[in-house]
Amino acid sequence: MLLHLSTWPEVEAYLKEHSGIILPIGSTEQHGPTGLIGTDAICAEAIARGVGEATQAVVGPTINVGMALHHTAFPGTISLRPSTLILVIQDYLTSLAQAGFTKFFFINGHGGNIATLKAAFSETYHTIGGLNLPNGDSIQCQVANWFTCSSVYKLAKELYGNQEGSHATPSEVALTQYVYPESIKTAPLSKQVASGYPIYGAVDFRRKYPDGRMGSNPDLATPEHGKQLYDLAVQELTRNYLEFVKAE
Amino acid sequence: MLLHLSTWPEVEAYLKEHSGIILPIGSTEQHGPTGLIGTDAICAEAIARGVGEATQAVVGPTINVGMALHHTAFPGTISLRPSTLILVIQDYLTSLAQAGFTKFFFINGHGGNIATLKAAFSETYHTIGGLNLPNGDSIQCQVANWFTCSSVYKLAKELYGNQEGSHATPSEVALTQYVYPESIKTAPLSKQVASGYPIYGAVDFRRKYPDGRMGSNPDLATPEHGKQLYDLAVQELTRNYLEFVKAE
Amino acid sequence: MLLHLSTWPEVEAYLKEHSGIILPIGSTEQHGPTGLIGTDAICAEAIARGVGEATQAVVGPTINVGMALHHTAFPGTISLRPSTLILVIQDYLTSLAQAGFTKFFFINGHGGNIATLKAAFSETYHTIGGLNLPNGDSIQCQVANWFTCSSVYKLAKELYGNQEGSHATPSEVALTQYVYPESIKTAPLSKQVASGYPIYGAVDFRRKYPDGRMGSNPDLATPEHGKQLYDLAVQELTRNYLEFVKAE
Amino acid sequence: MLLHLSTWPEVEAYLKEHSGIILPIGSTEQHGPTGLIGTDAICAEAIARGVGEATQAVVGPTINVGMALHHTAFPGTISLRPSTLILVIQDYLTSLAQAGFTKFFFINGHGGNIATLKAAFSETYHTIGGLNLPNGDSIQCQVANWFTCSSVYKLAKELYGNQEGSHATPSEVALTQYVYPESIKTAPLSKQVASGYPIYGAVDFRRKYPDGRMGSNPDLATPEHGKQLYDLAVQELTRNYLEFVKAE
Amino acid sequence: MLLHLSTWPEVEAYLKEHSGIILPIGSTEQHGPTGLIGTDAICAEAIARGVGEATQAVVGPTINVGMALHHTAFPGTISLRPSTLILVIQDYLTSLAQAGFTKFFFINGHGGNIATLKAAFSETYHTIGGLNLPNGDSIQCQVANWFTCSSVYKLAKELYGNQEGSHATPSEVALTQYVYPESIKTAPLSKQVASGYPIYGAVDFRRKYPDGRMGSNPDLATPEHGKQLYDLAVQELTRNYLEFVKAE
Amino acid sequence: MLLHLSTWPEVEAYLKEHSGIILPIGSTEQHGPTGLIGTDAICAEAIARGVGEATQAVVGPTINVGMALHHTAFPGTISLRPSTLILVIQDYLTSLAQAGFTKFFFINGHGGNIATLKAAFSETYHTIGGLNLPNGDSIQCQVANWFTCSSVYKLAKELYGNQEGSHATPSEVALTQYVYPESIKTAPLSKQVASGYPIYGAVDFRRKYPDGRMGSNPDLATPEHGKQLYDLAVQELTRNYLEFVKAE
Repeated sequence: MLLHLSTWPEVEAYLKEHSGIILPIGSTEQHGPTGLIGTDAICAEAIARGVGEATQAVVGPTINVGMALHHTAFPGTISLRPSTLILVIQDYLTSLAQAGFTKFFFINGHGGNIATLKAAFSETYHTIGGLNLPNGDSIQCQVANWFTCSSVYKLAKELYGNQEGSHATPSEVALTQYVYPESIKTAPLSKQVASGYPIYGAVDFRRKYPDGRMGSNPDLATPEHGKQLYDLAVQELTRNYLEFVKAE
Repeated sequence: MLLHLSTWPEVEAYLKEHSGIILPIGSTEQHGPTGLIGTDAICAEAIARGVGEATQAVVGPTINVGMALHHTAFPGTISLRPSTLILVIQDYLTSLAQAGFTKFFFINGHGGNIATLKAAFSETYHTIGGLNLPNGDSIQCQVANWFTCSSVYKLAKELYGNQEGSHATPSEVALTQYVYPESIKTAPLSKQVASGYPIYGAVDFRRKYPDGRMGSNPDLATPEHGKQLYDLAVQELTRNYLEFVKAE
Repeated sequence: MLLHLSTWPEVEAYLKEHSGIILPIGSTEQHGPTGLIGTDAICAEAIARGVGEATQAVVGPTINVGMALHHTAFPGTISLRPSTLILVIQDYLTSLAQAGFTKFFFINGHGGNIATLKAAFSETYHTIGGLNLPNGDSIQCQVANWFTCSSVYKLAKELYGNQEGSHATPSEVALTQYVYPESIKTAPLSKQVASGYPIYGAVDFRRKYPDGRMGSNPDLATPEHGKQLYDLAVQELTRNYLEFVKAE
Repeated sequence: MLLHLSTWPEVEAYLKEHSGIILPIGSTEQHGPTGLIGTDAICAEAIARGVGEATQAVVGPTINVGMALHHTAFPGTISLRPSTLILVIQDYLTSLAQAGFTKFFFINGHGGNIATLKAAFSETYHTIGGLNLPNGDSIQCQVANWFTCSSVYKLAKELYGNQEGSHATPSEVALTQYVYPESIKTAPLSKQVASGYPIYGAVDFRRKYPDGRMGSNPDLATPEHGKQLYDLAVQELTRNYLEFVKAE
Repeated sequence: MLLHLSTWPEVEAYLKEHSGIILPIGSTEQHGPTGLIGTDAICAEAIARGVGEATQAVVGPTINVGMALHHTAFPGTISLRPSTLILVIQDYLTSLAQAGFTKFFFINGHGGNIATLKAAFSETYHTIGGLNLPNGDSIQCQVANWFTCSSVYKLAKELYGNQEGSHATPSEVALTQYVYPESIKTAPLSKQVASGYPIYGAVDFRRKYPDGRMGSNPDLATPEHGKQLYDLAVQELTRNYLEFVKAE
Repeated sequence: MLLHLSTWPEVEAYLKEHSGIILPIGSTEQHGPTGLIGTDAICAEAIARGVGEATQAVVGPTINVGMALHHTAFPGTISLRPSTLILVIQDYLTSLAQAGFTKFFFINGHGGNIATLKAAFSETYHTIGGLNLPNGDSIQCQVANWFTCSSVYKLAKELYGNQEGSHATPSEVALTQYVYPESIKTAPLSKQVASGYPIYGAVDFRRKYPDGRMGSNPDLATPEHGKQLYDLAVQELTRNYLEFVKAE
């Protein structure tokens, strides 16, 4: 059940029996010479919808822009500041908690979002706890990264070994190829690819990672891999979601 | 050219010849008993992509959640506070201005966004002007509401007369029916529909407009109307966009 | 009844029978070579006091500085950022709502304030709704621009035709001449006056509108016109105020 | 020279020879059973204009609403939060510093503003220092309280002894009587008046000071006293202003 | 009883009989060529612990970094902006008020903190009053500067006369020598020492006070003086604390 | 070299040869029936000073209060909101970066700080990059948790197995016993200890973890263990710090 394709009476009916919602969150950021700028949002949204179908849960609108400040020296990247993203999460959850939602399951496509999301959850528990909502003290949030699912991680290792890298990875590129086969990009990729540098500011990042990749070889990606990774992610996150909403 | 389906070198190439970007902005809010919660984002996104195709302009990710605080007494609505939305716009534009974009054309699907967007533009000109960007003083933003296009307005009046109303209108419902024909909803609509009350807070809004509609009869909507409205909006906003980016 | 010339027991007594307050809001900004920097505040304050006399309503202190960022490249202009003005409005209304006021009628002298005021109203309904005030959900705000009163607009057109322009207009200058006849300024005005450019940032504004006027010829203003405009505005806004406080 | 009655070319001319501006700041707050709610703004504005005349300095618009949170349990009081007032001051000074003003002389009518003003000055030096203004590191602010002028203080002691008190004092009431002789209020004042309690929150304040006075007997005030106090304040602050703008 | 060396059940027991807490606040800022950067925090912490012992009150963790923006042109200085410090104080007090503390006694070592602390108290009374805490309207804060204790001031005058100055004073240096005798620093001090300039921004401050001292001769300090000053401060603030917690 | 026991000329000299600083950050929060409320700050500070001695690096003042909102239902806990902590970190680093520091090594004692610290680093790179500091794009931050050092983790497992738990652990308690042997607390600990629940809001946390421990048995702690853990942490973090400051 996709929130944007539902009506408010349908949501009202849903809330009589459920309290959970799936919120996909991605990023709009460079993904190397061949990766799509929307990669993280595309993956999160596709998987979230798969999980939504499997669980009959409501899937909210995709948060397309996340915390990608370190990629902003590459054109096309859009980022919120962490402090802005915290407010955004707080506003989403306040709206939804007022309606009766209490279990917020974020399916996340971008490692750079994790820290800020966790900070936002803490801030939001506190803020919503200060309002006088009937369930104000029962709000629960979880961030579920599709790319750290153990089944996904295992397959990525099998398929790509250490050419998986950590940004603009073949596994995320494969998943976007599966979702948007008409948007597969090619470009000459240097054999040498920077890796191993910690992430600091945007200028420093581009200096260290001049083409945007971090140790990855996205040339290895295929749409078929993407399908396999998608299926594994949906299965594993479906289990996770069901456990999450069932837990006390 | 959709930003999320592009790579950063493609954006870099684009920026050598262009400085404009189209940013769709909608809302996630109740649209009466039969209107989709995502109506405003669906309409803005579809039309923005149409304009993008017609103009070869980059179309950024859709801002799915806008300023809809007055709808938050209906479940399923998600809203940013105006102060949050101002920060979001500022962050988007700062990221994009650093890359070289200077012309920001917001295709908007929700009346409730307009005031905050305008406030955000003023704040952003000031903030970006305070950075040391080469084009910091040349940033220009425009909000283009598809539903106030004169051609759209004229057709809506012809088709629906004063049953168009001002929220959950047959014209916006028609447009979503054209885009998502598989998601056409039906529900009994009372003949009597509230209208004419000014908009204040969320509780007051629901008290005055108990089923969420404002003077509208969305039963009149058809996908065919939607196609007509879509075509008119794309044509008119294409002209507007081209004038906007050409102007000094 | 002017708030600043009243005592708290007088306000306490007033609140037993009334819930409305008039808040004049202007701006401190350039108004061309001959217009007063305080024009917008002067007009709003004078008219607000006229409406206050006619309605026996309390008139609060004038907000002299509004949202005029686009005029800040001209010396003498003072502006709040929209985000600051939102907080200011929120603080005013929180103080007054705690005391029992629920109807806030802003008599506004500056077009540039409108968007931010509307954003501020939305933010404030939400914030005050989150407090535990007895009337927290009944707060209502209205922005009433004296210069868009239909009677005012009609007279301005009659008197000045398209030399009215849209900033540093003869009608607002006339009104200040009526209020401050001892401060009528003269300076040579070029026949040519810029007009028609959209408003973006401050540097861009001064580049496009080098003497600060937007298509106007303030030389046409007279104190007598000012009196006429004043009278019309007071009459029309008196009616508006009375309807506003009476409405549910 | 009153800023609101000047034009921008007049300010531009002024700035070629001067760098100082006088900014009156008051408060909108209860002043006991007979004191005007606008007392602090009225006094600050009147004296600031006197000093402006004596020094030919520009006098900016009066900040009518200050930091009066502790008075908000009395109806009619309007207060900014300290964090809001800091932003307001910052916005005023940023606008004016961009135009070339560097010496900001606040004539203050309210003790409760002092701490926040000083905090705001520190914050503003830092913020403006971070912009690239030519004079960014030369900004100087001073808060000048008319009621702590030694000449004023001495006369108040002579006239009222310890019936001066510390809020709704006869000296400030006298000054408003001099400025607005038509608005002299009377009401029975209890002989007993609370005094000596420290100031905490608004509810606590009203509990401790039930009629709003702090140890004062405003019945002693006369317009003639007000004239004397006004003259002394203008003289002393004129000297202070001239020293301030002359100093390195 | 030091909070950081206590357990939560010990605090729970304490709160059954007490409602007060002592919070030391200092600064991390230059103190001239020989004064320790931690001087203000060291003094506040030592004295706070002395008062804590004498009164059996809980002493919270030292706020080591305060409002020292004007010292930031000297390396080693760390400062919060006033707006940040207001949030910090608000967060501390919200946490502690939720647990039942209502009397907050700040023992302060830095003049530059005073204004911001007072602003923070006002803001916090308002914010906590808006929560639904049982004692939300009873929160009371006091700032107690050890260096303005009358007994301390008197001794400093006797010992140092006008060589006490107003920053990097011999009395504060003496107190740090008493607390950290192994960290007594020496350096050639010029006989001439700047004094008398008002404090504005950081660059201006260093220009006026090139070695960081303000009219002081810290060479006069001895650990023995420090012990005397410490004893006086502890005695006087012990009395003050006991009065504060006893008062209504 | 402890910053608070240094003078500004000493820091100036240090900065000619070094660019790194160690910043200890802890928390002020419940640590079960026998753990000290200051545990996390005590551990971070002690280890940071050890690393400072081993590396001759400057050690800044300890951030005693961190992000512990989930512990605030236990008395004695003090927490910053994540959004406040982000501002605090930003202010610290802005002050220090202006002086020339570029390498910021946070020795952290509290898992709950990690997410917010990482968010703060991202925000700060962006903010400082926007200033015009010579090294603005070279700022680098690292968070080093003493309790996740591999040597520490290994020893804790050997000593305590799965009785280590994840909050109020015997290893952190042991370390505080080593640092403050005079403050070893005892209290009856139930054999049964809650574990395995995810962390959400404060009320939920106390409901799930009624005595504050998370799966730990702090009775196993001894000061001797504390010494061993301390030595390992200092050694490992000394290596980490030296690598960090040496890296490009």
